Amino acid sequence: MATGSSGSGRKSKARRPLPEVSVLRIGHRPGRDPRLTTHLGLAARALGAERLYLHPPDEAIRDRLGKVVRDWGGAFEVVPTYDWKAVIRAHPGPVVHLTMYGLALEPLLPKLRRARHILLVVGGAKVPPDLYTLATYNVAIGHQPHSEVAALAVTLDRLRGLPGPSPLRGARRRVVPTARGKRVRQSPEEPK
Amino acid sequence: MATGSSGSGRKSKARRPLPEVSVLRIGHRPGRDPRLTTHLGLAARALGAERLYLHPPDEAIRDRLGKVVRDWGGAFEVVPTYDWKAVIRAHPGPVVHLTMYGLALEPLLPKLRRARHILLVVGGAKVPPDLYTLATYNVAIGHQPHSEVAALAVTLDRLRGLPGPSPLRGARRRVVPTARGKRVRQSPEEPK
Repeated sequence: MATGSSGSGRKSKARRPLPEVSVLRIGHRPGRDPRLTTHLGLAARALGAERLYLHPPDEAIRDRLGKVVRDWGGAFEVVPTYDWKAVIRAHPGPVVHLTMYGLALEPLLPKLRRARHILLVVGGAKVPPDLYTLATYNVAIGHQPHSEVAALAVTLDRLRGLPGPSPLRGARRRVVPTARGKRVRQSPEEPK
Repeated sequence: MATGSSGSGRKSKARRPLPEVSVLRIGHRPGRDPRLTTHLGLAARALGAERLYLHPPDEAIRDRLGKVVRDWGGAFEVVPTYDWKAVIRAHPGPVVHLTMYGLALEPLLPKLRRARHILLVVGGAKVPPDLYTLATYNVAIGHQPHSEVAALAVTLDRLRGLPGPSPLRGARRRVVPTARGKRVRQSPEEPK
């Protein structure tokens, strides 16, 4: 304090921006698991991820999540891809593969929270072996058979915390948090 | 360490035992969403819940999760029920309905962590209106359209922290956490 860099130590700790997170889903099976991948996308968006790279592409999933964004706001996007390795190689930050076979998440968290851009990768039933070597980290959310939706949700919460009740930008609908029942406020443009 | 949940604000206060958690899934649609409810059960077990009350019953789900318990250990059970209200009424502790319309989770956490037995309730697409009044708390994990698998996972992590790498009791298989690839150790009885 006396050496006076105007409190920058405290400031940098308090004001560090949250890491920006993208999610890459590898090995989606169009037609077979639409609901599971939809849930993955919903969880990613609801817990603050910026985008879902979807491999392989699936128009139905993209449309469904696009409708959620139109109604509930924000800039979450589904980016279809046939080349998941290119997504990983182009990513400017740590690539974190969520797998029950990996190392524990918690010791890695302080380092990850300092990153600007994180790519979280979730596979389906069969994960391409290359993924284990291409990822910066292979990380387990518990070492038990698991759900990739659950693993993603816990990781996003640990990295960014839970979002508050404010609506996202451009939202036509917003929840009014309430102890009993449902309250949703719609913007005036909504009925047309 | 085992009880730790670093980063989510929990200070390890002496040795208070972690709350025992049961999960009630209402409105499962047998045949329609087997994978989603399977993921819900896997997440519940992997993150330390004791049982899944499944409404309505579904033998296929019960078998699938039963096989996971035989291989990977622990005492997690699927309890089929046609009467979800009876499950709620018989529960000796707070009943927490996870819904995007509820109040924020975080302010409630200190109170919940002091409970001995918690019942987490997740609905499907259509939630019976009675649930909002029968629940002790209606709680939101973010006020956005969401995945019940994700909401359950975040809540279990916030209540109990992440489990360590030790195998569960009676496990035939255990993961050996590793930075690259997969290592699974099988108990000697396994091959027969």
